[in-house]
Amino acid sequence: MQLFFRLFPCLVFGTLSAMATDSATLRAELVQTETAFCELARTAGIPAAFAQFAAPDAVFFDIDPQEHRGAEAVKLRFEGADPRAILSWKPVAADVAASGELGYTWGTYEYRAPGADGKERVGKGHYVSIWKRQPDGNWKFVLDTGNPSPPAKK
Amino acid sequence: MQLFFRLFPCLVFGTLSAMATDSATLRAELVQTETAFCELARTAGIPAAFAQFAAPDAVFFDIDPQEHRGAEAVKLRFEGADPRAILSWKPVAADVAASGELGYTWGTYEYRAPGADGKERVGKGHYVSIWKRQPDGNWKFVLDTGNPSPPAKK
Repeated sequence: MQLFFRLFPCLVFGTLSAMATDSATLRAELVQTETAFCELARTAGIPAAFAQFAAPDAVFFDIDPQEHRGAEAVKLRFEGADPRAILSWKPVAADVAASGELGYTWGTYEYRAPGADGKERVGKGHYVSIWKRQPDGNWKFVLDTGNPSPPAKK
Repeated sequence: MQLFFRLFPCLVFGTLSAMATDSATLRAELVQTETAFCELARTAGIPAAFAQFAAPDAVFFDIDPQEHRGAEAVKLRFEGADPRAILSWKPVAADVAASGELGYTWGTYEYRAPGADGKERVGKGHYVSIWKRQPDGNWKFVLDTGNPSPPAKK
């Protein structure tokens, strides 16, 4: 029994220290999740990807006057999008809390879709996604927001 | 010495349990910080408030094509604003990681400033702030973004 008490602090410190030093691994996990999210948007379509990666209580907002709350509402938000549209994005930075269940990524996105004249239109902007680890261990976003930049002047 | 090993697990478990159950207190801390931030914007001006609450490595973006990185750049972003402008905001939700050093708030804001005709213009939108506890224990934002909603149709 005494051995247990001698080992216990090492186990606890070992765990705490692993939590503290593992931030690079945690950040890499988020970037990987984001890459999978973006890849799914390309292969399965934007609404399906948002439905897959939204936490049940997720919120999404952009320039709509009202935010979209809940995974279903987030999916619906994108169902009006042109099915030929391609939304792609890349994180510039990622960070995760030491406790490993809350993190965020931000970066830039590009939205490409044919305009009324058939010519491709390109919209760009910034986004931020806040991620929470779900009970099954997977990351899903609890908040996602995109900020469109005005078109560059010619 | 044996007493130490007997007490140690209790201390550690006590601390971990306090960390886990204290999420309401942590969320309240963030809301309090946000209230102080908003109050400072009213009394000291928008650039001073952003300078005060931005972490050294903070990033800010809205519809500008380029993000603003670093506390000084964030402050500069707001220095062009009308000094008579009033920016006010209120969190709808807040969450903090179990480790207590990373959290976020999101909500709605209102921007009031006189237009060229002297009449007041009101802009509304959503924001999200991601907060990180600094070495001195205070919360500062590491990311802040505002999403203007289009004016309501009349």
